[in-house]
Amino acid sequence: MEIKELVSQKGKLAKKASRELATLSTGVKNNALLKMADELEKGAARILEANKGDLENAQKQKFPKAFIDRLFLNKERIKDIASGLKEIAKLPDPVGEGTKMWQRPNGMRIGKIRVPIGVIGVIYESRPGVTADAAGLCLKSGNSVILRGGSESINSNRAIAGILSNAATSSGIPEGAVQIMEMTEREAVTELLKLDTYIDLIIPRGGEELIRFIRENSTIPFVRHDKGLCHTFVDRDANIEMAEKICFNAKVQRPGVCNAMETLLVHKDIAGKFLPLMVKKYKDAGVEIRGCSRTKGVVSDIKDATEDDWRTEYLELILSVKIVDSVEEAISHISDYGSGHSEAIITSNYFNAQKFLREVDASSVFVNASTRLADGNQYGLGAEMGISTQKLHCRGPMGLEDLTSQKYIIYGDGQVRQ
Amino acid sequence: MEIKELVSQKGKLAKKASRELATLSTGVKNNALLKMADELEKGAARILEANKGDLENAQKQKFPKAFIDRLFLNKERIKDIASGLKEIAKLPDPVGEGTKMWQRPNGMRIGKIRVPIGVIGVIYESRPGVTADAAGLCLKSGNSVILRGGSESINSNRAIAGILSNAATSSGIPEGAVQIMEMTEREAVTELLKLDTYIDLIIPRGGEELIRFIRENSTIPFVRHDKGLCHTFVDRDANIEMAEKICFNAKVQRPGVCNAMETLLVHKDIAGKFLPLMVKKYKDAGVEIRGCSRTKGVVSDIKDATEDDWRTEYLELILSVKIVDSVEEAISHISDYGSGHSEAIITSNYFNAQKFLREVDASSVFVNASTRLADGNQYGLGAEMGISTQKLHCRGPMGLEDLTSQKYIIYGDGQVRQ
Repeated sequence: MEIKELVSQKGKLAKKASRELATLSTGVKNNALLKMADELEKGAARILEANKGDLENAQKQKFPKAFIDRLFLNKERIKDIASGLKEIAKLPDPVGEGTKMWQRPNGMRIGKIRVPIGVIGVIYESRPGVTADAAGLCLKSGNSVILRGGSESINSNRAIAGILSNAATSSGIPEGAVQIMEMTEREAVTELLKLDTYIDLIIPRGGEELIRFIRENSTIPFVRHDKGLCHTFVDRDANIEMAEKICFNAKVQRPGVCNAMETLLVHKDIAGKFLPLMVKKYKDAGVEIRGCSRTKGVVSDIKDATEDDWRTEYLELILSVKIVDSVEEAISHISDYGSGHSEAIITSNYFNAQKFLREVDASSVFVNASTRLADGNQYGLGAEMGISTQKLHCRGPMGLEDLTSQKYIIYGDGQVRQ
Repeated sequence: MEIKELVSQKGKLAKKASRELATLSTGVKNNALLKMADELEKGAARILEANKGDLENAQKQKFPKAFIDRLFLNKERIKDIASGLKEIAKLPDPVGEGTKMWQRPNGMRIGKIRVPIGVIGVIYESRPGVTADAAGLCLKSGNSVILRGGSESINSNRAIAGILSNAATSSGIPEGAVQIMEMTEREAVTELLKLDTYIDLIIPRGGEELIRFIRENSTIPFVRHDKGLCHTFVDRDANIEMAEKICFNAKVQRPGVCNAMETLLVHKDIAGKFLPLMVKKYKDAGVEIRGCSRTKGVVSDIKDATEDDWRTEYLELILSVKIVDSVEEAISHISDYGSGHSEAIITSNYFNAQKFLREVDASSVFVNASTRLADGNQYGLGAEMGISTQKLHCRGPMGLEDLTSQKYIIYGDGQVRQ
């Protein structure tokens, strides 16, 4: 009961703040963002002290090294987090932007303009930097935010959010616009997910388990950012040199992220020429190859790919390889196994490029470029809240615009319904 | 178990059809829509026979007259339903439309294009015409649809959907693109709402109870179309003649719909001049007035408005009236009691108009026009799926564009992530 009430109070306060926040000028919001960045740097000692606590707990609980690395902060990382906020201050304010305007035969002028969504709940895992990114993006787009980080980083998140919230309030941002959930109980999340009276959108940033939990418990709409099972298809007419460069980049440059390639599809007519060299390059870089039976006919010393492999987001230096008969078979494989994140074709054939772009159902479809480029910064959108893998509301890199809704404004001079 | 399987099969078939449907040409879709319209008219006798069954059941169960009227079909109404499909054929195809395209410093060209959402489940109440509207809009926007009408109109819906589905399939639309739920059990809806593997979007068209049921049971995102508690604020500087015309229209022209006015707010300085005449007009038209205490000081012979009245969507010839001190108080009342549907200000004051447009949080905000104009056809969007009262995905009249998602397409020539 107590948790329920505490969470509900946060929601109510956030809603109240959101009304005022929605009409604040860009100048006030930008000044607050710059102040928040400054105060983060000034408060570095306090944040690092809190972070030390989280790191000690994580080590005691023997969390994996990669996990602890994501948790770790130092002066440099805090400076980067602060720079992120300064970058957000530089981005154009999406609020109030008119996206369309037209006139009707009865003289009524109709416009569509961007407005904030209202209150956003962000649920994320270990990286404490997300606390500042999410707070900055929500504030710039005129939304109140309630942040719920992982319990492993609760001390760091509290310290960061406390500083941000104070800096915001002292710069004219209404109290309650930036809040954190201090409670680490699971119950607190469950209650948050039921607050549909106050919260307009939930943004989960985490794995499949988190998404499932939210789908089953939330009465609030959410935009999910989950897995990326990305393919690259090397077509018969691919430029081999370009294909090698792109395929290497898509797998090796940073294998642990959602836009890295997991399965390589190769046209049968180019496989004999392309695969032996490519696989050698991969092996030299430490990539484990798992191939279909036809792949094993072309390159030796690789493991068998099983049905499970086509369904697996490795997030490490493992790659499944399949030889296909045609662009149609490639598209069909992607349609069966892809996660709708990012897919690429390497080809010199105009018609196959067009076909792939049209028929592949994914948030980003690439011709002759690496799936690793699927990213808000790479697209020129600025900072992103993550990459949406759903079709409702927004799809692909989620930038400031995607944190807004739109409303119709109608300028009349006495029009009525006939 | 059997229902669960039947529903699941429908979902699977719809998903399969959606892949093919997504890339069909506009010509094929339009021909199918025209064929569907023709076949509906040719099948009128069969539909009317089925409708007779529904009407007899409804009369046995003593449903209200208005309900039975919505259920009722005749040749004329079937012709109107068919015309609706022909109108949809004339609308521009949203699929494939490019909404943006830009170039990045590395030479990569990025575009955003509209794509179908996939599979849409439409859950609606008595009016059988919705069966055809929903099927037509989904087909034109390249989406498979699973229709679930009210059990009261099951015979009419089955007859209509059967004809539409056959006409579609015989015109080259994949089987399963237009399906109806024949099962009237509640369990069938509950199962439908869990089919997140196959269904991408649920569109409920019904009252608050339906929305609550869906919110609590759906694991699929939905766009809700629920109540409209609309206000009109007559400002101090309103043109009285224009205010009378608009306020009369907003309440009286068709009181039973979501964009009709429920509460009239009047600035204190114009109330004495405006309200007596306006209330007389309303009373002559049979409108019952419920006023705040200050209103009762200006006009006699009216009922008291209670706190409950500010929260009530009457949907009939009843109007609550409140006198306010300022545009700020009007906005604050709307913010406390409005449903975010459609709100209007009548004013000659430039600053108050701008303030109202900016600060009122609703899907449509009007200056000097009737809230009754909040409608897809009136806005020039063509047929609509309803009026969304939520902020995610789309807000306001939901036309063909709002039945699409977008994807990024990237034209590269060898770009990789640095």
